[in-house]
Amino acid sequence: MLNIASVEKWYLQDNEADAVHDIAHVGRVTAMAGHLAQLEGADLEIVRTAALLHDIEGRKEDGGGRARHHLYAAEFAGKLLTEQGWPDVRIAAVQHCIRSHRFRDESEQPESIEAKVLFDADKLDAIGAVGIARAVAYAAQHGEPFYAKPSKLFLESGQKEAGETHTAYHEYLFKLRKLIDRILTNSGRLVAQERNHFMEAYFRRLEAEIRGEQ
Amino acid sequence: MLNIASVEKWYLQDNEADAVHDIAHVGRVTAMAGHLAQLEGADLEIVRTAALLHDIEGRKEDGGGRARHHLYAAEFAGKLLTEQGWPDVRIAAVQHCIRSHRFRDESEQPESIEAKVLFDADKLDAIGAVGIARAVAYAAQHGEPFYAKPSKLFLESGQKEAGETHTAYHEYLFKLRKLIDRILTNSGRLVAQERNHFMEAYFRRLEAEIRGEQ
Repeated sequence: MLNIASVEKWYLQDNEADAVHDIAHVGRVTAMAGHLAQLEGADLEIVRTAALLHDIEGRKEDGGGRARHHLYAAEFAGKLLTEQGWPDVRIAAVQHCIRSHRFRDESEQPESIEAKVLFDADKLDAIGAVGIARAVAYAAQHGEPFYAKPSKLFLESGQKEAGETHTAYHEYLFKLRKLIDRILTNSGRLVAQERNHFMEAYFRRLEAEIRGEQ
Repeated sequence: MLNIASVEKWYLQDNEADAVHDIAHVGRVTAMAGHLAQLEGADLEIVRTAALLHDIEGRKEDGGGRARHHLYAAEFAGKLLTEQGWPDVRIAAVQHCIRSHRFRDESEQPESIEAKVLFDADKLDAIGAVGIARAVAYAAQHGEPFYAKPSKLFLESGQKEAGETHTAYHEYLFKLRKLIDRILTNSGRLVAQERNHFMEAYFRRLEAEIRGEQ
């Protein structure tokens, strides 16, 4: 069975210096997916295998970047598990998990409980204390500040004004605080509520400190 | 009198793409220093002027980098305020604030209440929700992860094992959580206690999430 050490080589080559989708993210998602799989009665081997392979990007192979990484990762998993002698039906189950995990692509939604568990575990890594750190690291990697006061337009519509910079705080307002509404399993929702609560408290406090109130 | 708009040009040229010592940091420190100055009965003009100029680096002029930035900034302030017709004794007071603000250089300690106030305001921006974001952004800018499990050696001595990567969490353990002991004014200590408490809760939770416990 695959483990974090056996998949690491496929991440190192693609994700150098990416603190947001690195092997640590894959390790956390795999642990959380395994945890949720047990609570939800999902097939642990399918879930863990899909989690370990879900973010392989293949940037070098097809140049598709993140927008297609879930499709590339599913293909990669198909080849690998065929070599390992997995039955077709279980390979297809892993591939469905991987293809349907991507938040922005709604063309294939998670149908199986295994796919729902992976989807949730991936989203849970974007909220809470870890989600805060990933949002700030992502902004810094892209030369963006962690905070700038959002425009009225952005607060009302999610659209930025001309010249308005994106920040970790913008990402929180527009995406991260809404992730809880996308969670699919009851076990995932319990974790999400606690993490979301903490994340909201963090960004409230960040803004208060910046206003000089705390 | 100087304000954030009038000093911004000196920061933009030196601090492009530095989310940690950018003009936003200067703005927060100036606001906090002004707040503490009023509580401590310090000279507001000296404090605000020193705060606005305290982080001008002059990387391009002398190549000294951050290790000497406080000395360069003090020289810069001297020239600027002389041009503006400030009395020598007040220029010297501003320069003392700037030269003694640097945590790592103990050769000139803050003696005046104005210098103590600036020192505290600068340290307060490294703890709390803002301090967390700055530590994570700094790590990301340097290609470091926000978290890796610290070695036993690091936990006991602050020395890293061979191959041990520095992370935002290491920075917290080694420096940020101890900053509160360096705070010099009573007003600063009250703010520091609250910010430190929140920062400790954040990093405790970050570790718990990463261990899969929350």
